[in-house]
Amino acid sequence: MLNIKLILSYDGTGLLGWQKTPLGPTVEEHLETALAKILQEEVVLQAASRTDAGVHAEGQVVNFLTKKTSLDLDKLVKGINSLLPKQIVVLSAEVMEESFHPTLDNQGKEYHYFICNESIQRPKDRFYSWHFPYPLDVLKMKSAIPHFIGSHDFSTFCNELPLLKKSKKDPVCTLHSIEIEALENGRFCFKVKGDRFLFRMVRNLIGTLAYVGCGKLEADQIPDLLQSKKRALAGVTAPSHGLHLVRVFY
Amino acid sequence: MLNIKLILSYDGTGLLGWQKTPLGPTVEEHLETALAKILQEEVVLQAASRTDAGVHAEGQVVNFLTKKTSLDLDKLVKGINSLLPKQIVVLSAEVMEESFHPTLDNQGKEYHYFICNESIQRPKDRFYSWHFPYPLDVLKMKSAIPHFIGSHDFSTFCNELPLLKKSKKDPVCTLHSIEIEALENGRFCFKVKGDRFLFRMVRNLIGTLAYVGCGKLEADQIPDLLQSKKRALAGVTAPSHGLHLVRVFY
Repeated sequence: MLNIKLILSYDGTGLLGWQKTPLGPTVEEHLETALAKILQEEVVLQAASRTDAGVHAEGQVVNFLTKKTSLDLDKLVKGINSLLPKQIVVLSAEVMEESFHPTLDNQGKEYHYFICNESIQRPKDRFYSWHFPYPLDVLKMKSAIPHFIGSHDFSTFCNELPLLKKSKKDPVCTLHSIEIEALENGRFCFKVKGDRFLFRMVRNLIGTLAYVGCGKLEADQIPDLLQSKKRALAGVTAPSHGLHLVRVFY
Repeated sequence: MLNIKLILSYDGTGLLGWQKTPLGPTVEEHLETALAKILQEEVVLQAASRTDAGVHAEGQVVNFLTKKTSLDLDKLVKGINSLLPKQIVVLSAEVMEESFHPTLDNQGKEYHYFICNESIQRPKDRFYSWHFPYPLDVLKMKSAIPHFIGSHDFSTFCNELPLLKKSKKDPVCTLHSIEIEALENGRFCFKVKGDRFLFRMVRNLIGTLAYVGCGKLEADQIPDLLQSKKRALAGVTAPSHGLHLVRVFY
């Protein structure tokens, strides 16, 4: 029995996210199918982040157990990549201790969120950044960030889970940092690091920062928003296609 | 009669380049159709660069003459963009002197070419950079650049034109600069500036630089290659999807 860790990169455009669903193609389904062909056994995949439909990944971490006792990892990577659609690739494979679990063991994650803040978005950014054409005041957004940093009950920034996925998840998360970097063509990259994230939390934080940036909310309202635990009071949920899972920390 | 200059950005993926062809969709055709609807007249478009199938543009410059004597340019831009497919946008419109011609008047162009030099390419780069997995020696490539700079007969780096487009074009061009910038995820951006470029010249220069970088050619062979005027002796034509027309100078 081997416990294999894979690092994946994918372009989420047109995919229904990580988790299998009868509604359409997902990363889990494609990967499971490829692995079944190569290993000639069914495997169960676990992912560090169950990314939503349209969300991209640079460094998603997943694992599976195989009955094989030895595997040529280079060949495994090449084999999987030859079977996957071009929008998903395995970057690396590694044999881990039997106890390794990508979700339970991770110490935190880094997400990047891209906003295009020009009146007209470049076509090549259209699947990778949120087109937000209203002027954004970066200093205002930056002044809101300290209110989020640290350990808080982030219920205000958690969407309601679909019925089937409901579980009592601890709403207290620790947000380590949010950095805002200005890029060419009026784009901003929001780099968000934290120990764990609630359902749609990054997208809700970004939507709220955008509301602060365009004057719909004030930075000093954030503590009250956190206190309220009312999702409806905070900013919009930023669309999924601007979100990129960059790194999982172990 | 007004002479209108448009600046365009497009994602060339799935398009058959600038120029109209019965074989499939092109930028010219989409733009012409949109303008005919808005202006209720047929217009003839001229572009600064007749980009190939798959080539992208950040700042393509085109013009057309209209019988209108006044036009709300903001509305024109919005109108065109509402009719164009999402992979093409007009960034700006401007009324020019009657004599302005985007091809004849331009002083030069800047192209960027992206190469991904890792063994596995990130899916989100797959339509925008050439995946070249063999190790590239950047110093060797840089040492080849000075041989190209300046005015030369670039026949060696010009593909034969399709029969219908044949014209006796002066093969002497002036290359102003090629800069190589290292980017994240093993990518390089080659920034190429020159007064004018022959058919597929940028892609042939890049293919030849890649050959130098991986040891298939030596930098000091370049002067002989230029002298030879034999396309077959130089490097491969780099694929179109790595090429981006960034700027046209007037």
